[in-house]
Amino acid sequence: MTAPLKSIEGTGDIAAAMAGIGRQARAAARTLALSPAAQKDRALDLMAAAVRAQKTQILAANAEDLAETRAAGASSALLDRLALNEARVEAIAAGIETVRGLPDPVGQVTESWTRPNGMTIERVRVPLGVIGIIYESRPNVTADAGALCLKSGNAAILRGGSDSTRSSRAIHAALAEGLRDAGLPEAAIQLVPTRDRAAVGAMLGGLDGNIDVIVPRGGKSLVARVQAEARVPVFAHLEGVVHIFIDKAASLAMAKTLVLNAKMRRTGVCGAVETLLVDRAAAPTHLKPLVEMLLDDAGCEIRGDKAVQAADGRVKPASESDWGTEFLDAILAVKVVDGLDAAIAHIARYGSHHTDAIITDDAAAAEKFLAEVDSAIVLHNASTQFADGGEFGFGAEIGIATGRLHARGPVGAEQLTTFKYRIRGNGQIRP
Amino acid sequence: MTAPLKSIEGTGDIAAAMAGIGRQARAAARTLALSPAAQKDRALDLMAAAVRAQKTQILAANAEDLAETRAAGASSALLDRLALNEARVEAIAAGIETVRGLPDPVGQVTESWTRPNGMTIERVRVPLGVIGIIYESRPNVTADAGALCLKSGNAAILRGGSDSTRSSRAIHAALAEGLRDAGLPEAAIQLVPTRDRAAVGAMLGGLDGNIDVIVPRGGKSLVARVQAEARVPVFAHLEGVVHIFIDKAASLAMAKTLVLNAKMRRTGVCGAVETLLVDRAAAPTHLKPLVEMLLDDAGCEIRGDKAVQAADGRVKPASESDWGTEFLDAILAVKVVDGLDAAIAHIARYGSHHTDAIITDDAAAAEKFLAEVDSAIVLHNASTQFADGGEFGFGAEIGIATGRLHARGPVGAEQLTTFKYRIRGNGQIRP
Repeated sequence: MTAPLKSIEGTGDIAAAMAGIGRQARAAARTLALSPAAQKDRALDLMAAAVRAQKTQILAANAEDLAETRAAGASSALLDRLALNEARVEAIAAGIETVRGLPDPVGQVTESWTRPNGMTIERVRVPLGVIGIIYESRPNVTADAGALCLKSGNAAILRGGSDSTRSSRAIHAALAEGLRDAGLPEAAIQLVPTRDRAAVGAMLGGLDGNIDVIVPRGGKSLVARVQAEARVPVFAHLEGVVHIFIDKAASLAMAKTLVLNAKMRRTGVCGAVETLLVDRAAAPTHLKPLVEMLLDDAGCEIRGDKAVQAADGRVKPASESDWGTEFLDAILAVKVVDGLDAAIAHIARYGSHHTDAIITDDAAAAEKFLAEVDSAIVLHNASTQFADGGEFGFGAEIGIATGRLHARGPVGAEQLTTFKYRIRGNGQIRP
Repeated sequence: MTAPLKSIEGTGDIAAAMAGIGRQARAAARTLALSPAAQKDRALDLMAAAVRAQKTQILAANAEDLAETRAAGASSALLDRLALNEARVEAIAAGIETVRGLPDPVGQVTESWTRPNGMTIERVRVPLGVIGIIYESRPNVTADAGALCLKSGNAAILRGGSDSTRSSRAIHAALAEGLRDAGLPEAAIQLVPTRDRAAVGAMLGGLDGNIDVIVPRGGKSLVARVQAEARVPVFAHLEGVVHIFIDKAASLAMAKTLVLNAKMRRTGVCGAVETLLVDRAAAPTHLKPLVEMLLDDAGCEIRGDKAVQAADGRVKPASESDWGTEFLDAILAVKVVDGLDAAIAHIARYGSHHTDAIITDDAAAAEKFLAEVDSAIVLHNASTQFADGGEFGFGAEIGIATGRLHARGPVGAEQLTTFKYRIRGNGQIRP
């Protein structure tokens, strides 16, 4: 049995406690920035081993979290996100090992050049510093985020959801053991030891300059609060209002395959398509088969404009608010548009700059779409569910960002670094 | 004579007027993002020509600004920053042509790879969007910033200082002519048409999401206000507390050359050295010659610790506040430290993460310094006054940033872009 929760509620002076966490994180970040890749990898190996070794304690802590949350009347969806079992604990350990296997981005020279006066200038990757992660009930984020921050040389301050407090503590204990045994500061990955919401406010304020970036992991209300209140940069996306445009030169077979995958493979992920736009020139041949496939084969609700309703009597009328809605469910808004420009204009108006795709065999139309749609990820003839760091080959991601600065799209180890310029001379002065 | 100032004070509803400027900038940014390099370059050529053609009007407007500012009792330094003459107007035109000659960063593919399923992923540069520039009395910033934003496909909202209102308007008129004649939207470069300080507040609030980045150009109080109040990312440095460390393995001749240049070439620039750290092991041979050179040859005031005071009776005692001070004048703080680690620790405590240098013939010491000092620019055996976009080969810069995210060091055309991922498939779905 884990310690009673009361004991981690701190002294009441949350602000002072959080400031101390910030200072310790900054000190740890300085050490991590200079730690060799082998030492960080050793810590990751030890962390994975400790998670496996402490499986019993992790599952016991999780059972307590589950019992308390169930007694409070939580939804089954929340309980599922919270629940761990042997397979999920193993997946946590394996996830740490995946991160361990990634190349170390720190120290990579991304550009170098020599000036006419003989000075060489290198642009080299360095860690961002201290990353604050604010998440909800999924206890695995503790390990996923902690491992990715460590790999990229950053200190992490983790603030998990109240429901998963004991589970996160048990997982964090394993991470701390790995850090300690590898000779790295335990403060490299800190777990905020209180459920008090004032701790979140303190993190959003940046802990006196000791948090460089905040990453929220959770539902839209959490992300919205973080984006509205944070005084430090945030890597996040509020929602994925993902579009697919069926161009007049689209292959119907490919359109059916891609739309089915993009909508139904998993409806709750941010890369799931939410609005289908069909070129009016393609509607006579493509609209009815696509709608019937979704209704009959996939059990997907369709909300359409007049033209789509005319294609099948089961289509529900779309309201203005359906355009721009992230359903995260087996519901698709479908609209007939007057060609490529109208599709691009619709996406500019209703989209969320996350992921959008065109299906066409016309290379010029594809290039125009890829150029003009202003989203982090734009695809031609591929499923929007590829919007994922793993599918990009990043190995792991801490999230997907739709901001324009620094990190955009899937945020992997490389995006958790910044850079500095190293200049080597032999006595050059500026004239 | 330019129009009376009253006419540009707006209707009193600054918030509504600024919101309109934001919307126009966003619309222009969409056009610019897709404008071919040749069209942007044509506009830059026409802008430079228009500045030259309208020299008389620009100088007349500047004379009015100068008269008003002189009558208000301004300092000679402010009047010098504000003053234009034929040579300075020509330099403004030539600066636009320099930017025109840079490569267009937009559309550059910085990475591309193919996934095992055959999808290709490209990371391609796209503009940031809308950049707000808040500056003080130098009227040339109007053209410099406007040109660099245009080159990188961004719309610019310029808010110049009250002293230079008429000069900025006259220069802006030339820029607008160039945009118009090249068929680009005039709203690509807008000048805020009011002296009301509420306009600055509105920009710092981000104009309803229509400003992506703010760049302050001016003194420390302006930058501090912008950094404290902005609700959008800021590319800036508050100050350049620049250090040079004289290692025990430094060549005295090189140390003298570099320190003299780094301090005295121009004392008012952000790359000017402000604190000299001398290894205790080098002090017996290097300290006195360096101090005497600065005092005798350069007329530089020295504020030193006890060991430095002992080297020359003219050295003034340094107070604690001298460490970490950006003098921007012929004043240098000098301290003897116990080796490389102590130097790095001093810089971590008192530095501003801008630019720091080591002088040594010991390659290992140099590499340690370059690795461990956490500044945007770190140099070995070269003058700190190379901290400049032009000296990096960027052609032009909008400023130097010390933030950790996105832009760091000199901010040139390339740093005014972000990226998106373009994915090309042939029907791939996610398993």
